[in-house]
Parts: sequence; structure tokens; C-alpha cells
Amino acid sequence: MFTAPSIPIVQGPMLGASGVELAAAVSRAGGLGSLAAAGLTAPVMRDAIRAIRAATDKPFLVNIFVLESASPDPAVVTSAIERLRPWRERYGLPPQTTPAKWAESFAEQFDVMLDERPPFVSFTFGILSRAQVEALQARGSRVIGTATTLAEARAWAAVGADAICAQGFEAGGHRGTFLKDVSESLVGTVSLTRSIVASLDIPVIAAGGITDGAGVAAILALGAAAAQIGTAYLLADEALTSAVWRKAISEAGDDPTRLTRAISGRYARGIDNEFMRAMRPVEADIPAYPVQNALTQELRAAATKANSPDVLSLWAGQSVGLARAGKAADITTNLWRDARDIMRANARRWAGD
Amino acid sequence: MFTAPSIPIVQGPMLGASGVELAAAVSRAGGLGSLAAAGLTAPVMRDAIRAIRAATDKPFLVNIFVLESASPDPAVVTSAIERLRPWRERYGLPPQTTPAKWAESFAEQFDVMLDERPPFVSFTFGILSRAQVEALQARGSRVIGTATTLAEARAWAAVGADAICAQGFEAGGHRGTFLKDVSESLVGTVSLTRSIVASLDIPVIAAGGITDGAGVAAILALGAAAAQIGTAYLLADEALTSAVWRKAISEAGDDPTRLTRAISGRYARGIDNEFMRAMRPVEADIPAYPVQNALTQELRAAATKANSPDVLSLWAGQSVGLARAGKAADITTNLWRDARDIMRANARRWAGD
Repeated sequence: MFTAPSIPIVQGPMLGASGVELAAAVSRAGGLGSLAAAGLTAPVMRDAIRAIRAATDKPFLVNIFVLESASPDPAVVTSAIERLRPWRERYGLPPQTTPAKWAESFAEQFDVMLDERPPFVSFTFGILSRAQVEALQARGSRVIGTATTLAEARAWAAVGADAICAQGFEAGGHRGTFLKDVSESLVGTVSLTRSIVASLDIPVIAAGGITDGAGVAAILALGAAAAQIGTAYLLADEALTSAVWRKAISEAGDDPTRLTRAISGRYARGIDNEFMRAMRPVEADIPAYPVQNALTQELRAAATKANSPDVLSLWAGQSVGLARAGKAADITTNLWRDARDIMRANARRWAGD
Repeated sequence: MFTAPSIPIVQGPMLGASGVELAAAVSRAGGLGSLAAAGLTAPVMRDAIRAIRAATDKPFLVNIFVLESASPDPAVVTSAIERLRPWRERYGLPPQTTPAKWAESFAEQFDVMLDERPPFVSFTFGILSRAQVEALQARGSRVIGTATTLAEARAWAAVGADAICAQGFEAGGHRGTFLKDVSESLVGTVSLTRSIVASLDIPVIAAGGITDGAGVAAILALGAAAAQIGTAYLLADEALTSAVWRKAISEAGDDPTRLTRAISGRYARGIDNEFMRAMRPVEADIPAYPVQNALTQELRAAATKANSPDVLSLWAGQSVGLARAGKAADITTNLWRDARDIMRANARRWAGD
């Protein structure tokens, strides 16, 4: 069913950090590179897929979010805009107006997938119908569904997915949760991977906290078919990670990340900052994704330009302290070399081989 | 420094589930059995340690909580008692009176440790002074400090602990957190183990979600010196786990656990039940451990007697679905056999050995 690339490492799709160059570099090195396409218009997404194909003949992955179109209560939007006013003033931005659109169209992105037939496609924030899964498979794509609980993994298996991306508690970025509240859907990488592997007959790509070779070796011991790794690529030369985001990663202290819905309206893990702390008491009132995400977009762009981390989405997983800079190909091959060394050494040390 | 037993598996100390028999059985089988002594009076604790020594000449561990004596606000106690009134009525219990003591004395338990010199001692909920650590070491005990964050691990290393028990997010039972709020101290087992192993030169015993041989192999790949395993022993013949607790474990559905402070006043992970759900909206108002723990004691005893899970502390980790019944010795040797098989198989499959 699921044909792994030569190295069982999937570069996690990271909106704002993983574009064409990173995906192509990881795939060329033998891993599975990923395009984070959720924020792209259909034509830009199409061009990006074609650019990866032009750069490598190896398999790659394209990820989008499964989203209904947003129709927020205008009063909720007004109070969200008011809540952001002092932060916009800090950056000299004019009063926020209602954006022309809240998010890119899932339907249009899905049609690009059907047309362009990427070797692997993955989905987050929701689930496809069996008909949608089969349409992708009929065109030659392998379909990967993101699950944060065993119940979500069962749901993806039931619609015929080829593999599950098991997103553990440690993972950076947005939680893919779609069945229950996020508060009821937080399972550590060890337990989530083992629960799915033990309960379902479907390949598992495990994500969350895997940032070095030891993590890769561990996740394969848990029975995963591959490790999905985001944070370890944030400092890659080819990543789109902004200078201020890279600086926050390099200077992160002990235990630096938190889950927040302040920035986008959907829980995501990032390095704690002033905005996340300030919003914590009112977090429940913030409008759901993609509304808050759209409302903070200009603000985040201004802060990035000013090299100021205070209001930014500094997404990163709990093992962020282990991320290292370098070429994506070297990061990939070093991760795999270290993982194999550890597997050999542990078999000798503990299992008498 | 840290001398591992012949099998790198520590049976986690579990108040209410792990007594003399379980500890002795695990140690005899080659693992490290643990006595959960926090709930014992000093004389009972002394007898229990002597009983383990009489049952095995192998090393074992004794765990207690580092607790200040409680002096709760009487108004807080009164409202906590009022909150529990309908639940006591359900079991026909008379109105709650203020208990004679809130918890056993840490100072007396610590003196028993000094006198009885268990080979391994571990501590949760707080940290010892350097003088206390050295006093235990001078008498021949190895000192293990429980940490839920990298910062807590640093603190234990700084007072001279021999090893860190890294308690990941997945772990069942009480969170050992002592530096910051629990909400800021939740780190998945993969990230917590790697962060500590990579940052500090001290052996790490990793806990959280490790309930089968694959989990043990994974945790050793992460560089841990041993795996601490609680939930996998809850169904052991020698465990003190009540019939109703065993039933809840055997019948647990997908993703069944939650963190709660409703039962004891300190966050702990257990199988969700009616009381945990009912208390969720008022959880922040519940008096801190050990006050709430003492106030729910009679109620829990009555529910256990009635075989009713509604108000019980059904502590269990996130991999509870993998727990199996059997003799503790068989559980221990099977875990280790499976872990070694996986290490050998993965070295062959992935690393060409």
C-alpha cells in the first residue's frame, strides 16, 4: 500500500516555512519532502507542485487543510478586531478592515490535487469522504490522513486512507484535531503511535518531538513506518523560516513551547511570546480558524519585517532545542545515519547482537 | 553512578496499586520493583521495606512525596466539603468532618528511608536539598528525582541526584511537577527524554506511555538508561489494583484518559469518569493536595466497596489499552524479551545488520 521513500523520514509540511525548495531538497536526499499548500491560491499551488516535479523525480507530498468556508458572526469579528487594535497600533498599522476572504478555497486546492496527482497527499483539520479518498487514489496519489487520537485514526482508516500521520502532543504547529475538542485530543507521541499501530492495520507516520536520529530510531521501534519531522527542518538553509523565527529557535530556553489559539483561532504549538501570554485569559473568546488567522496576518507580517517576535507565530515542537542549521539534504542524511547507528548500537548493547 | 538492575525496567510506584508483593516480584524477575510509600505511616513503611528485603535480595526502590504540612484556609475546606456532599449522600455516607490529618509526615517517612537504606529512593511533588540527597547517599541509597520539565531535571542534577525520572505527558497518576504550574509543565515522553539526555550528564529513567516491549525499545533508543512502567503492572496478579479499577482498565475505549485535579487537588491522569467530568468547570476552586485527597478518601473507599467507578481515581497512562493481566514476573520478562526482539529486528531491517 504505502511505498516509503528510501529514507523513512517525512519532512513535515509547515505553512510559512516549507516551500518548493525545502520539499525538493529533502526528496532529492531520499526522504519525503512536503509542500505546505494550505495557504496558497490554486494557481500558486499548481505552479509549486510543478516546480517540485521539475526539481526532482523523487516522490513528494502535498498537504492542505480540510476547511469549510467561514461565515463568522459579525459581532465576534468586531470584538476580535478591537482586541487586536493596540497590537496593530504598536506597528503603526491602520485600523483593521474585514478581509476580502478568510482562507483559500479547499475545493479549488482539492481540484489542483486531482489534476496534478502528487505521489503523496496529506490532509489536516478535517477528514475526507470515501469518495474523495478514492478519487485521489484513482489518479495515483497515496492519501495520508492526520490523526491526533486513536478515534481519528479509525475514522481515516474507515474512509480508506493509505496511511495515518499520527500527530503527537509534542508536535509543533497546528493541532490536526477534528473529532473532539483539542483539550480531549492531546496524546503523547509514544502512546498515540503505539495505540494506532496496535489497533489498526494501516501504516503510521509518527510526528511529534522527533528532531534527531535518536527520535527516528525510537519511532521506528514503536512500529511506525516513518517519522514525520518538522522542527528539525526549520533552520534548514532551504526553509522559508524568517530571520526572527530562526533567532527565537536558536535562543529558546528550557521547555519553551506552549499550545495557543490566540494567533490563528486553532490550537497550535509555538515558542511562547508576549501576545500568547497576553491573550491567554481571553483565549476562549477568540474566533475560530481561519477568522483569527486572517485578522492577525498583517500584524504578523509587520512584526516579521520589524524583526520582532512579540506577536508572531513561532511554531515549533517540544524538541526545538535540538534543531540545527544546515542544508536540508545534510539534515536528512544525518538524521538517518544517526538513527541507524543507534539501532545498531542498541541491538548490540541490549540484545546481544 | 546509577547501577541498573539486570533488566532496565523500573516498575513505577503507584499509590493504591503497588505494594510489597508487586515490588518483590518485579525485583526478583530482574527489574526494579518499587514500593509506593507516600500513603504509609512511618511504622507501616518500615515494615513494608523489611518485607521486600525478606522476599528478595535484589535491588528495589522506595518512593515518597516531598510535601510541606498542609494548613488550608478553613473556608476553602468548608466549600470543598459542601461540593462533595451530594456524592457522599449517593453512598449513604454521613456528613464529612475535618480529617485528623491531611497526609502522612514527609519528615517521618524520610527518617525511615535514612534508617532502612533502600538501594534506590525516588521523590515526587518536590525537591530535596543537597544535604538531604547527600545524607541518603552516605547511607548507600541511590537518589532519583522526578522531573516533568528540563528545568526540573536541572534542579535535581544541581542538588546531586544520581538519576532523573523523566515523567512524560503520557504518564498515569499524579504529575510530579514542582517548579511551575502543571499547565506549563506538560512535555511528551519523546521530547522530555531527549531534552534531558541531550542537555545533562545524568542517567534518565523515562516514564510515560511505555506499556509494551516496543515502548521499552523506543525509550532506550532515546538514550534513557531504563524505562519506568506503571500502567502495564496495574493488571498484575500481585498489584493491589481494586476489582473496579481493573474492570475500568480492561473496558477502556479509545483515548480514555484525562488530567484532573478533582480527586486529589493535584493534577493526575486517569480514566475519565462521572466525577471528573462533573468537577471540570470548578476544578480551579478545589483545594490543593493533600487536602482534597484526604476529603475524597472515604468516598473513594465506599465507591470501591460498591464496585462503582463514578468517583474513583482510576489512574492510568495514555497507553492503558495495551495493559495485560498476568504474573508480574511474566510481564517483566515479556516486556524485555519483546523489547530485545524489536531492537534486533529493527537493526536488521533498517540498519543492515
